[in-house]
Amino acid sequence: MKIGFVGLGRMGRAMAGRLQGAGHDLVVWNRTREKSAELAAAGAKVAVSIAQACEAREVLVSMLSDDAALDAVALGAGGLRDSMPAGSIHLVMGTHGVEAIRSLALAHAAAGQTLVAAPVLGRPDVAAAGQLGIVAAGPAAAVSQCEALFKLIGRRTFDAGLAPEGATSIKLANSLLLGCALEAMGEVFSLVRKHGVAPQVMFEVITDGLFSAPAYKVYGKIIVDEAYDNAGFTTQLALKDANLVLAAGDAARVPMPSANTLHDRLLGAIAHGDAERDWAVIAREQARASGLE
Amino acid sequence: MKIGFVGLGRMGRAMAGRLQGAGHDLVVWNRTREKSAELAAAGAKVAVSIAQACEAREVLVSMLSDDAALDAVALGAGGLRDSMPAGSIHLVMGTHGVEAIRSLALAHAAAGQTLVAAPVLGRPDVAAAGQLGIVAAGPAAAVSQCEALFKLIGRRTFDAGLAPEGATSIKLANSLLLGCALEAMGEVFSLVRKHGVAPQVMFEVITDGLFSAPAYKVYGKIIVDEAYDNAGFTTQLALKDANLVLAAGDAARVPMPSANTLHDRLLGAIAHGDAERDWAVIAREQARASGLE
Amino acid sequence: MKIGFVGLGRMGRAMAGRLQGAGHDLVVWNRTREKSAELAAAGAKVAVSIAQACEAREVLVSMLSDDAALDAVALGAGGLRDSMPAGSIHLVMGTHGVEAIRSLALAHAAAGQTLVAAPVLGRPDVAAAGQLGIVAAGPAAAVSQCEALFKLIGRRTFDAGLAPEGATSIKLANSLLLGCALEAMGEVFSLVRKHGVAPQVMFEVITDGLFSAPAYKVYGKIIVDEAYDNAGFTTQLALKDANLVLAAGDAARVPMPSANTLHDRLLGAIAHGDAERDWAVIAREQARASGLE
Amino acid sequence: MKIGFVGLGRMGRAMAGRLQGAGHDLVVWNRTREKSAELAAAGAKVAVSIAQACEAREVLVSMLSDDAALDAVALGAGGLRDSMPAGSIHLVMGTHGVEAIRSLALAHAAAGQTLVAAPVLGRPDVAAAGQLGIVAAGPAAAVSQCEALFKLIGRRTFDAGLAPEGATSIKLANSLLLGCALEAMGEVFSLVRKHGVAPQVMFEVITDGLFSAPAYKVYGKIIVDEAYDNAGFTTQLALKDANLVLAAGDAARVPMPSANTLHDRLLGAIAHGDAERDWAVIAREQARASGLE
Repeated sequence: MKIGFVGLGRMGRAMAGRLQGAGHDLVVWNRTREKSAELAAAGAKVAVSIAQACEAREVLVSMLSDDAALDAVALGAGGLRDSMPAGSIHLVMGTHGVEAIRSLALAHAAAGQTLVAAPVLGRPDVAAAGQLGIVAAGPAAAVSQCEALFKLIGRRTFDAGLAPEGATSIKLANSLLLGCALEAMGEVFSLVRKHGVAPQVMFEVITDGLFSAPAYKVYGKIIVDEAYDNAGFTTQLALKDANLVLAAGDAARVPMPSANTLHDRLLGAIAHGDAERDWAVIAREQARASGLE
Repeated sequence: MKIGFVGLGRMGRAMAGRLQGAGHDLVVWNRTREKSAELAAAGAKVAVSIAQACEAREVLVSMLSDDAALDAVALGAGGLRDSMPAGSIHLVMGTHGVEAIRSLALAHAAAGQTLVAAPVLGRPDVAAAGQLGIVAAGPAAAVSQCEALFKLIGRRTFDAGLAPEGATSIKLANSLLLGCALEAMGEVFSLVRKHGVAPQVMFEVITDGLFSAPAYKVYGKIIVDEAYDNAGFTTQLALKDANLVLAAGDAARVPMPSANTLHDRLLGAIAHGDAERDWAVIAREQARASGLE
Repeated sequence: MKIGFVGLGRMGRAMAGRLQGAGHDLVVWNRTREKSAELAAAGAKVAVSIAQACEAREVLVSMLSDDAALDAVALGAGGLRDSMPAGSIHLVMGTHGVEAIRSLALAHAAAGQTLVAAPVLGRPDVAAAGQLGIVAAGPAAAVSQCEALFKLIGRRTFDAGLAPEGATSIKLANSLLLGCALEAMGEVFSLVRKHGVAPQVMFEVITDGLFSAPAYKVYGKIIVDEAYDNAGFTTQLALKDANLVLAAGDAARVPMPSANTLHDRLLGAIAHGDAERDWAVIAREQARASGLE
Repeated sequence: MKIGFVGLGRMGRAMAGRLQGAGHDLVVWNRTREKSAELAAAGAKVAVSIAQACEAREVLVSMLSDDAALDAVALGAGGLRDSMPAGSIHLVMGTHGVEAIRSLALAHAAAGQTLVAAPVLGRPDVAAAGQLGIVAAGPAAAVSQCEALFKLIGRRTFDAGLAPEGATSIKLANSLLLGCALEAMGEVFSLVRKHGVAPQVMFEVITDGLFSAPAYKVYGKIIVDEAYDNAGFTTQLALKDANLVLAAGDAARVPMPSANTLHDRLLGAIAHGDAERDWAVIAREQARASGLE
């Protein structure tokens, strides 16, 4: 397949690497050119402009860090909408807001192009191994056309229906669910500590039974060990996601008090200097609010 | 061992049955005598009063439904405190509040008796199979003396330290953690539904990855199927537990906003007629608040 | 009128003083006898027991500090229920929980007595001046019989209907409304401070217009001046009231998120050492949570 | 003074009318020209473009409905920044977000212009009478230069300091404070109703004492009368303001749980069809959540 790929951060490079490795005709572009070096060495063509990355492409994958970057790359002058061939697909794989996806889908449709949203679940090492979870939504024929790509990148694809922002909402919801588990762990660890119990015992109780899943095992251990300094995902970035999920709730008129609690805890952690720590640090922020730190 | 057992509800009967089956010298008592029939047939002696159930016992197990029942049975005239031999142990296995446990422990100590708190995790069928999780706390020698009993009833015992209310706090905290997961699922299911996604897809995404644990698999399925009428644990009982956990937070000065959100959602569900439904119905109450029902 | 009066704290003494001054036949009782001295000097009879305070009384006024004291005085052996003449009225003027009032009303009814709830609004100096607000509820004839007393103590009586706990709920609701105003002020003062504005300016804006009322003028000034050490009403007592209002919400199935927020802020303030400061200190607790202190 | 005025909605026309009436040299502009008719009849010049409205002006007043309008008018090609003389002042009197004001102030500074933020408190009739409250912030000399204008429009000017967004934050905070009062009233009205009390009684209690201010008298009456259909300020607009205040909290790292509660209540009301009703309707939304409607 003739594929363009824009956005070569850590995730983007890992994903593009899978496509290149499978022998697809790949053209890549990144705002800072150096990040293309490894892919170029592996045989990918490196475009000097977004427009060049779009030439004669069937699918244009974007893996960008936020809505502002997506807006600039897709809707700026000489961007994807201006440059993609009619009939081609913009496969948006980054995490974005529902309104950004909805309005971009309309802009592409007006230009005779199709947007498929397919945010991913997993980190760069999982991407490099082709084991991501992929949540895909968009017009059925277009999603179907992307399946060969999904198979290279992911372990499993979830069909989220015909509205691209549906996939977006699932990705944000999954992140919210994790944040709520972190907040709840923060509350219960403080509660048992103040009743004289070592956090490790609470950790063993929960991960032995109802909560024997990565969300609690991995993050519960970070909390018990207070290993917040080596951030997998920072509090600052988590706040950005929390605001995206709240905006998705606003758009759909869904009041989400747990999302508010998470948002405020992240904000408190940042106010107390934890912006660049792993977002599990909200458990320590909860302890602070309980007079424990 | 010479064991007394008071409180023969479904859980109590299953637990006492395990002890009887192992050949211990068991005397049982229940407020309504009929519930002793099965245990009597299996060879247990049935006491006509709490005092008789306490005669010459080394350990007196209680498995009562709430603090009021515990208060009446333990501290009423002719109750456990009045009747248990000096040096004996009151092994409290029901779910109670931290203040009830703390003050009862003092009352027993004043009478030369020892309280061990050992609330259990699991339902009657799990108890009958001797596969409960047990969270035990109290003076080390007394806890140690109870271990033979724990082995008959449980799969695993967690050592929650020397303060009995520590075990209580863990049990309540575990219940809170589950309630928070239910509330969070309610929010995300409403969010994705309003963005056009079938709840089943969201369910598959979460249980496939970070949340592949019973809390999400079992309860998520109840929510997706809207199977609330066959209650495993009612909204009304869940509200009682939520109030116990909030009281534990008050006692220890731990603000728990997620516990508040859970509490309010349960209250809303009850206000809308769901008191006797399974507490997972709070997901539907969330949908109602979002204008979906 | 033949009046008994139990509970001679600062408020009780001021209120009983008004009744004595008007020439009523007054018998007073207090758990610690010394507090009766001033009233005795003014001519009131001092009873040596609750029973004696009830002899031949038409109305028995209680002004007690909490539900536990009310329960002991009213329902304990030899207490009000046991001692009040048939046909007499227990006029409860303290602040209590709705369930305490409801069950006590039933207990009195079973003994041929009538309960009228008439909690008051105002502090001891206002009581001494006969300028309290009084919220009265109970059977119409009984309320009517108390009116002569209300006129001596209060500036205005509000008719809260036939159910005594209705008056209770208004008193608790009024307290909640004030707590919510304090919390909201805490949030907005932190917000403007962090945007470079002196709290005094914000105070002037709000009290000049929409919020030119004592709740904002008096308490807003305490916050601006950080004058928390000379407590009019402590954080600890405010937490007790917050729990009463939450219990009233539970009883009636009313989810009250603002009450939760207030409750948690009070808890946080206490966790950080502010139990005995004026409850307006929750504004500083809010600032602490915002990283300002 | 040579004044330009852009944004002639109801508030803008009333304010510009005051300036025109005092004999200032006034040029006005509005996107839809018809709204200038009345001012033109009174002697104001009507510009055909923003650029023309800026010619030789000392102060350019804007009174626009939201950040998008401000962004377009101020930063669009041929907008205020491009057209205002060096040394002139952009006096922003609409309600905007803190980030919009902060970044616009920088843009004007880069163009040799000065931004003064001076949001107003009051409605069109108050503006027409020159009785607004004005909260002004910006460089001292520039604020001072605007004082003659403030005197024509307002009853009182509050000095919010040197940072323009400080004035913005006060305006948003004032609106939040009112929203919190509405939410708290909703909660207490539901509480007392469910305990058998007529809302009117509660209204009398609160407005008689601690809360005898317009926020409670005016809005409390709307709630008691359920007079939501004749909207002074709609739920939809209130949600916009709630999001601005939450964004101001985000920018300053101030967690505001009461603002979240307000936000969610507004969202719930909109989800249930109340978008165009007066925002006091959140009291009815609270009643709905309590099972009362």
